[in-house]
Amino acid sequence: MSWTEDQITAWFAAQRNLSPGFFPIGIGDDMAQIRVDKGTSVFITIDMLLDGVHFDLRKATLQQAGYKAMAVSLSDCAAMAVVPVAAVVSVALPKGFAAKELKMLHQGIMLAADKYNCPLVGGDITSWKGEEHFAITVAMLARAAANKPIKRSGAKPGDCICVTGTLGGSGLGKHLRFEPRVNEAMEIASIAKVNAMIDISDGLTSDLNRICRQSKTGALINAEQIPLSDEAEKSKEPLESALNDGEDFELLFTLAENEFNKLIKHWDSSLPVTKIGTITDTGKMQIQTADGKLQDLQPAGYEHLG
Amino acid sequence: MSWTEDQITAWFAAQRNLSPGFFPIGIGDDMAQIRVDKGTSVFITIDMLLDGVHFDLRKATLQQAGYKAMAVSLSDCAAMAVVPVAAVVSVALPKGFAAKELKMLHQGIMLAADKYNCPLVGGDITSWKGEEHFAITVAMLARAAANKPIKRSGAKPGDCICVTGTLGGSGLGKHLRFEPRVNEAMEIASIAKVNAMIDISDGLTSDLNRICRQSKTGALINAEQIPLSDEAEKSKEPLESALNDGEDFELLFTLAENEFNKLIKHWDSSLPVTKIGTITDTGKMQIQTADGKLQDLQPAGYEHLG
Repeated sequence: MSWTEDQITAWFAAQRNLSPGFFPIGIGDDMAQIRVDKGTSVFITIDMLLDGVHFDLRKATLQQAGYKAMAVSLSDCAAMAVVPVAAVVSVALPKGFAAKELKMLHQGIMLAADKYNCPLVGGDITSWKGEEHFAITVAMLARAAANKPIKRSGAKPGDCICVTGTLGGSGLGKHLRFEPRVNEAMEIASIAKVNAMIDISDGLTSDLNRICRQSKTGALINAEQIPLSDEAEKSKEPLESALNDGEDFELLFTLAENEFNKLIKHWDSSLPVTKIGTITDTGKMQIQTADGKLQDLQPAGYEHLG
Repeated sequence: MSWTEDQITAWFAAQRNLSPGFFPIGIGDDMAQIRVDKGTSVFITIDMLLDGVHFDLRKATLQQAGYKAMAVSLSDCAAMAVVPVAAVVSVALPKGFAAKELKMLHQGIMLAADKYNCPLVGGDITSWKGEEHFAITVAMLARAAANKPIKRSGAKPGDCICVTGTLGGSGLGKHLRFEPRVNEAMEIASIAKVNAMIDISDGLTSDLNRICRQSKTGALINAEQIPLSDEAEKSKEPLESALNDGEDFELLFTLAENEFNKLIKHWDSSLPVTKIGTITDTGKMQIQTADGKLQDLQPAGYEHLG
């Protein structure tokens, strides 16, 4: 029997009742919240990226690998609308990795660290004994912004479902150079009251499904409103690409209609924000296609354990 | 050209002047300190452990791997005498890993988490596509105790050099089941003023060398005073084993002689604390052997990049 990542996460979460006072947000959101003392919380996320899975070092550079490792964690900060504070990085090197290669990796890490003001404060380097592959883990700390941190679990029936940017085809290149939506998340949260948010890592359907499950809601998506990337447009199945390719690292969020109107009115970023559907009380995800037909939508995005 | 881990760490540290107000302790100590807001700091450490390097899953169980991954980070908390608060864990699984195996891993993680009151609050699971090996990363947060956090850089000429427990032969089994000295570190710091501390991960000579380099001191060790483990006693070269095997995860610390006397007077743990030498101003490490000879001591412990 093999589990999906979501099943494993649910199992881990069920093992333990974390004290809600001390850990207001725990396993199953983009970051865990830890109350350090009265009035002060930190947020933490961890992600391991593997050569051959999250990038392919036969084609991608080490700068790109370092940048992506940081950007994935920065995207988790964006998903909760919290402020990145510092990162620590751990790398496992294949035999024969040299100083020159580490410097390239470091350049990529620092590119993201500098751009998003999230310094590298510590790390750990270890080496495989044989021909195993390069792996990199980033753990990132964040602090709350002026807004409350935004969880996955707050979506309400009637909410507008929105995404930033365009979706699909990230595997063709964007996944190595995407901009984590840290600044946009802050901007959105400062304009409007957002009820639920997540970053699209495994695919629109998979990540929307997480919001629905944790908010105990359903969702109705309008296929024609989904903003397709150029890469998705050129693909054989543009809609399928936008729904399930994953690694878009765009924001997926829900908010009441009046809050959505407020957001659109004040939104002056060049990055589009698009309403793609509505949160429902049906308990299931559905999609309305161009011909008006309503279909059930299954989470079928990229599963790291797939 | 291949670098040692210490060379790489020094290079990383040199790339960046971290703001000392915001990051009072940065790259090159057991944990990095991050000032979250006025008056509140957190500490963070990250370590990746690899199958075939830090344990061998043909012989070790997954419980042992999970326990060790947590215990290594807990030992970093001990090294600074700070209080573990929470951990996040990231694992990379070989193909075909099943739910049963993840539960075993989880058991090991929770054994350490429960024993040292450091809950698992989040994580990430990913899977290799081929036959690569299991890897696990733990990032751990800590907070300051009543004492000040203890750095590597505070040793002073004249300080007594002390270790907890016994050294050598950890690879025969102790490395999978050691007790991180979290409680003992608190106890030591509450009794006496400790000037510098580190946990022995790469070996007494390597880790003492880190204290000396960062404190800009030398050290004189008395070979006869080094407490040998039973495993070291039985080995062909007991002294060599205690000096360089590594993964003892005992505390190595320095303090003024009057503070040492205070510590010994009030120390009522069953775990021995032994004075093994003196911090000097020679700038080099030396060892006095049983025949009275003085030799230079080179850091030769286990290097993860060796």
